[in-house]
Amino acid sequence: MRSFIDVSPDSHFPIQNLPYGVYKLKVGSQPVCGTAIGDYVVDLSILEEKGYFKKTILGDKKVFSKPNLNTFMALGREAWKQARIVLQTALSDDNPLLRDDKELQKIVFTPMKDVVMCLPAEIGDYTDFYSSREHATNVGIMFRGKDNALMPNWLHIPIGYHGRASSIIVSGTSVTRPKGQTKPANEENPVFGPTKLLDFELEMGFFIGPGNSLGEAIPVNETYDHIFGMVLVNDWSARDIQTWEYQPLGPFLAKNFATSISPWIVTLEALEPFRVKGPEQDPKPMEYLASKGDWAYDINLDVFLKSEKETEPFKISGSNFKYMYWNICQQLAHHTVNGCNTKTGDMMASGTISGPTKDSYGSMLELTWRGENPIKLPGGEERKFINDGDTLIINGYCQGQGYKVGFGEVAGKILPAK
Amino acid sequence: MRSFIDVSPDSHFPIQNLPYGVYKLKVGSQPVCGTAIGDYVVDLSILEEKGYFKKTILGDKKVFSKPNLNTFMALGREAWKQARIVLQTALSDDNPLLRDDKELQKIVFTPMKDVVMCLPAEIGDYTDFYSSREHATNVGIMFRGKDNALMPNWLHIPIGYHGRASSIIVSGTSVTRPKGQTKPANEENPVFGPTKLLDFELEMGFFIGPGNSLGEAIPVNETYDHIFGMVLVNDWSARDIQTWEYQPLGPFLAKNFATSISPWIVTLEALEPFRVKGPEQDPKPMEYLASKGDWAYDINLDVFLKSEKETEPFKISGSNFKYMYWNICQQLAHHTVNGCNTKTGDMMASGTISGPTKDSYGSMLELTWRGENPIKLPGGEERKFINDGDTLIINGYCQGQGYKVGFGEVAGKILPAK
Repeated sequence: MRSFIDVSPDSHFPIQNLPYGVYKLKVGSQPVCGTAIGDYVVDLSILEEKGYFKKTILGDKKVFSKPNLNTFMALGREAWKQARIVLQTALSDDNPLLRDDKELQKIVFTPMKDVVMCLPAEIGDYTDFYSSREHATNVGIMFRGKDNALMPNWLHIPIGYHGRASSIIVSGTSVTRPKGQTKPANEENPVFGPTKLLDFELEMGFFIGPGNSLGEAIPVNETYDHIFGMVLVNDWSARDIQTWEYQPLGPFLAKNFATSISPWIVTLEALEPFRVKGPEQDPKPMEYLASKGDWAYDINLDVFLKSEKETEPFKISGSNFKYMYWNICQQLAHHTVNGCNTKTGDMMASGTISGPTKDSYGSMLELTWRGENPIKLPGGEERKFINDGDTLIINGYCQGQGYKVGFGEVAGKILPAK
Repeated sequence: MRSFIDVSPDSHFPIQNLPYGVYKLKVGSQPVCGTAIGDYVVDLSILEEKGYFKKTILGDKKVFSKPNLNTFMALGREAWKQARIVLQTALSDDNPLLRDDKELQKIVFTPMKDVVMCLPAEIGDYTDFYSSREHATNVGIMFRGKDNALMPNWLHIPIGYHGRASSIIVSGTSVTRPKGQTKPANEENPVFGPTKLLDFELEMGFFIGPGNSLGEAIPVNETYDHIFGMVLVNDWSARDIQTWEYQPLGPFLAKNFATSISPWIVTLEALEPFRVKGPEQDPKPMEYLASKGDWAYDINLDVFLKSEKETEPFKISGSNFKYMYWNICQQLAHHTVNGCNTKTGDMMASGTISGPTKDSYGSMLELTWRGENPIKLPGGEERKFINDGDTLIINGYCQGQGYKVGFGEVAGKILPAK
């Protein structure tokens, strides 16, 4: 399968991907829904207007001339599959309809460099899980020692908590270093000021398509139909604020100042060829968590840090989404087993993704082991945590035969506290 | 001040109150915004259409012909004050405009019994605080003993966490007993099933009017202008699920199956005469939490339980909002001090409100001391926690001179697990 648009083998956006996002032109326009192909964004509102989706479930509905993808996401898997077929057909090099319509191409395609990406969805609720065994173990060893590293509930429950939806921001948005209360070990009383231990967390998140009603659980083997697609997530964290505030109700101000996501939602259809077996689960999950089939995904994840003094980002971690102990089906089944309702556009993140080796950890906390082993940057600087002026970049992709299905990146620069 | 509408001295809705809510007629109509006077709801969309608010900041805007109050709440304090003056004037018995317009009265007033109340706002994010010292102490004694009852951070921080916005429901909506994982003390492995320890939590919540931008804290003495008004809250809780799941990230499925609120938002203007001094705060709060003036509110709160065998609700607790250690200004200042943004319609709840005496505790957990002292109902039944078929009712009011400014009630009946 090839597109008439030239796509390099290293591009994240070949015709096998076709992620969904929301963008506007740099010279002021309303945000619209689009897809990506090679170095171009594709205006789906125009294709919709031209009737490209008329024969699908979408019919004459206006689902793409909106400032978010919620309307499309609410339609469900069959609609998503049909829209994907329409787009793959329209962009294919053996279909003349769009390929030979140079006038239409002029208004449908825009170089990526000329657009600003927006948040892809209106996010009602945001949940963050804690599903990497390696991450939970690392943090456990640091705070409770090796013998009690994993909490007794961890192997039974995809542990999660509610995050803040309002402060989810799109890649490229700068983040102001948060201020807050911390309790230095050598002081009697807490102090107030900018966090000294600013961290990233390498995560991925999925978006809810059709939701479920209050009181109605989603059975684990029906969760797939409720999940639209995935993004990269950086769950920024202020470790010193977290340590002082989190007992007994969990992280709050240590997290809710910003959560960055990549702008393109890669659909589960595009990720299908990269589904793999996840880690062995022992003890066996309870019935309501017993997902059938393989629900891990082989997604390469790389983390880069770029200080203001460096010209190039420096790779500080290389991990993979397949290391997650609890899969997305189990997460969603658990979330709703008590009758909790979900809504279209809700986002659920994985929790920090750490791999088995030291160079695959998903946070500065783990990579530098609480600052004991600072990271050395090529120019000679050292980092225990993240400094003002640093940019943190996560990218992610699946490697196919001669092509990549990628997520692009989620990047954010830290500005000094106000 | 008197209305031409007859209002009994025991009514929660005299002309001194004028809360805002959203309702629809029982015989199908679109939800609209209204206020309450005596036993009537007042259709504000009609008053708006008739130009009653034309000379205020509202001008010709359509803010009340909406299915939620968000548009009105976003306008800010000056607009709220002006709208209140318009309504108090229009409903006053010495103003003939509406008093003598019997035709208009026919379409503007509807008996409360003929309407269904809806959620008053579209709630983006929901935060739950933990601001009652008595509650935190009681729970601390039960789980950690008397000497370590309060966590070290508690007197420094208005502890809070993120709740689930999607499952906030309006009074009158039944709640299905949630299922989940619990870990009985005598079992090696967790088990799955309906919660055996279903509880209520007596709380109040406030709604954000104008929000703040990401990165911009709201100074504690400017928080007032961001707070529209308050409601009663029942933060349903499944104690056995909570005990097993909450380490280390806080409550999740134990809470997010339902949170009930009263339908009428009582404005801070209406509550102004009932502002009182709160508990002494020692140690002195940090600068960013140093609210000037008195920011507790004298709001009587009563809790009733009605089993299916009883004909009348039985009072199980009587408390007061003034017992809260951290006030609403401090809560909002703390929430945003790290730059976390808030949006119009966000709701922030107080946490369980327990008073100093045993009959003023705000949960079954405390009232029965983990079930050790069951509550005896008049018909002979006993309750350690809440049974299927039980209805839990919270009501609240401020007592003025010859009138009440009330919240009505928040009620919810427990249905058996599915």
